[in-house]
Amino acid sequence: MSATATDQRVFNFSAGPAALPLSVLKEVQDEMLCLPGAGCSLLEMSHRNKIFIDILHDAENGIRSLLNISDDYAVLFLQGGAALQFSMIPANLAKDTGKKANYITTGTWGKKAVNEGKKECDFEVVYDAADSNYNHVPSADQYNISDDAAYLYYCSNETIHGVQFADEPTVPSSVPLISDASSDFLCRPLDISKYGLMYACAQKNAGPAGVTVAVMRKDLLERGSATLPGYMQYKNHAEADSEWNTPPTFAIYVLGKVARWLQQDIGGLAAMEKINREKSQLLYDAIDNNSGFYKGHAVTEARSLMNVTFNLPSDELLAKFVDEAGQHELSALKGHRSVGGIRASIYNAMPTEGAQALASFMNDFASKNG
Amino acid sequence: MSATATDQRVFNFSAGPAALPLSVLKEVQDEMLCLPGAGCSLLEMSHRNKIFIDILHDAENGIRSLLNISDDYAVLFLQGGAALQFSMIPANLAKDTGKKANYITTGTWGKKAVNEGKKECDFEVVYDAADSNYNHVPSADQYNISDDAAYLYYCSNETIHGVQFADEPTVPSSVPLISDASSDFLCRPLDISKYGLMYACAQKNAGPAGVTVAVMRKDLLERGSATLPGYMQYKNHAEADSEWNTPPTFAIYVLGKVARWLQQDIGGLAAMEKINREKSQLLYDAIDNNSGFYKGHAVTEARSLMNVTFNLPSDELLAKFVDEAGQHELSALKGHRSVGGIRASIYNAMPTEGAQALASFMNDFASKNG
Repeated sequence: MSATATDQRVFNFSAGPAALPLSVLKEVQDEMLCLPGAGCSLLEMSHRNKIFIDILHDAENGIRSLLNISDDYAVLFLQGGAALQFSMIPANLAKDTGKKANYITTGTWGKKAVNEGKKECDFEVVYDAADSNYNHVPSADQYNISDDAAYLYYCSNETIHGVQFADEPTVPSSVPLISDASSDFLCRPLDISKYGLMYACAQKNAGPAGVTVAVMRKDLLERGSATLPGYMQYKNHAEADSEWNTPPTFAIYVLGKVARWLQQDIGGLAAMEKINREKSQLLYDAIDNNSGFYKGHAVTEARSLMNVTFNLPSDELLAKFVDEAGQHELSALKGHRSVGGIRASIYNAMPTEGAQALASFMNDFASKNG
Repeated sequence: MSATATDQRVFNFSAGPAALPLSVLKEVQDEMLCLPGAGCSLLEMSHRNKIFIDILHDAENGIRSLLNISDDYAVLFLQGGAALQFSMIPANLAKDTGKKANYITTGTWGKKAVNEGKKECDFEVVYDAADSNYNHVPSADQYNISDDAAYLYYCSNETIHGVQFADEPTVPSSVPLISDASSDFLCRPLDISKYGLMYACAQKNAGPAGVTVAVMRKDLLERGSATLPGYMQYKNHAEADSEWNTPPTFAIYVLGKVARWLQQDIGGLAAMEKINREKSQLLYDAIDNNSGFYKGHAVTEARSLMNVTFNLPSDELLAKFVDEAGQHELSALKGHRSVGGIRASIYNAMPTEGAQALASFMNDFASKNG
């Protein structure tokens, strides 16, 4: 990448907060001192200002359009990240219902959701992939969900382990499906009508840290009790159009720009999925075609489009890999301490050139060190 | 202000999110595509990256230095705004203690805190200024706080009504004092050792929307039960150095720059207070010295340094005032619907020239229309 165009930017494989489209960053930069027509920076503008309300609605409509979300669903912009969702979901949708919340656990984020969920409600883990150190996702015949479960919760892509559901888990029609899509939101088209609630922190695939998008079937908004802390009740946010209190205005503004980039520059989620499949295939090919030098963590069927996780033959080679990759302007590749090895996060905004550069480096490194 | 330097920026009297120092916005703009030495934008960087952790610590140390905060206090960066604090405070510090939380209510924000607080704990409003439509703050002989209250909560500056406590309320030494300082944080020096907990959303006086600073006496961290939603337990955030989950990285980064501006460019909080007194006096003089044309909302002793609220003789003149002020590049002056009239918010980042321009406009407008 040219230093003049990008001011010494490198290919950034960070797992989150993560790469954003350069064109979006440039727009933000251009508008930083003064949003056109506003007389001030977006950072300085009241969230009640019509200009900001239009920005918020544009961001919402961008997401609605990309995912083809019907009016049966609310789109909310929240704070507190997945961590607060871990509590809000059971507190709103299971607590005091007499029903059990069901969870499928395929990695660290699912486990965290379980730890918070069990404080709030009756509870059952219907599948836990711990025995395999979370290298796979279950097939429908491996778990059982009763018709009167409060909901089924799963994490569609486990960032740390690099495992992703190819399709949604199967649930009885009476059971709302709830997904933590923080790390694969907007990576491919999907059928929102299958979901009761899908949420995503923006900072992996959709924007900066500080905003969480929740797409929620409107009938479920009614389940939360008014005795909950007001911020935790989804209905408050829905009724106030995400302005029950001051929303994270800047993060929403950037999120809206990312949605527009996806629609206009990329061509929508089907086009984005095609690119994501190409990028991930480059890396999985490098894992598979180097005579076993690299060992992938996820089983083939559960390989993530977003986070490619693999190990090297020794800790020494791992350290050497990270060091030499850095010299090739390939950064933030070290895996999470709980899994080790390498994690290459290739979210939507990672250009194909970045995946090509890493694949090429992997092939070279294997030849020289294998 | 010159159009070339500031790209058609006007004097922005928004109550929040609100004006930021132009020099801070310029730094953010310069670094938007690539933080020096990072290879990527701050927006794209992992919160576990050492560069970001240093930024977080710089922001914390900037606040510690400005307010002379001792190691007996934790400084936390949280999400969810004041709204979530309204619930976190009683849930951590009063719930299940057998003690009553005490509240002084001098405006809208205090009332909101009461509405959430009473869901969580035993409860007493020891003073409510509602009868005066919140135009004053009580003196110490107007309320009574028992030695075994869980805490005393108050809002040091009520943005909507424009009333501010000149000094902290008086509490027994056994009772932690808790302040919502969202709209006057860092506006003047104060003695943190008087407080059990002071919190502030950044978006009025200290940064952009999306981060809330909590300065909390460390012994109080222990009061929150582990059965609370994890995000709501202060101790989790303190033990993880505000990285219990992904913090709002960009807002913290800007907050750190604002703290540095306060220390280095302004010269600290005593210097800031002097400027704030001068700015507010310009506007209060314009209210007082125009033969009763303007009617201030707050009684003189409780006038806010941050939000100057007043009314005009008629709704027609009010509309004309707002319209003509806009033509003079004085924006966001309309008061909150619950009080009406004008609200001129003159937080730290409003330059003295802005207050001078508004005072001059007020004098002219009164001459022509009085």
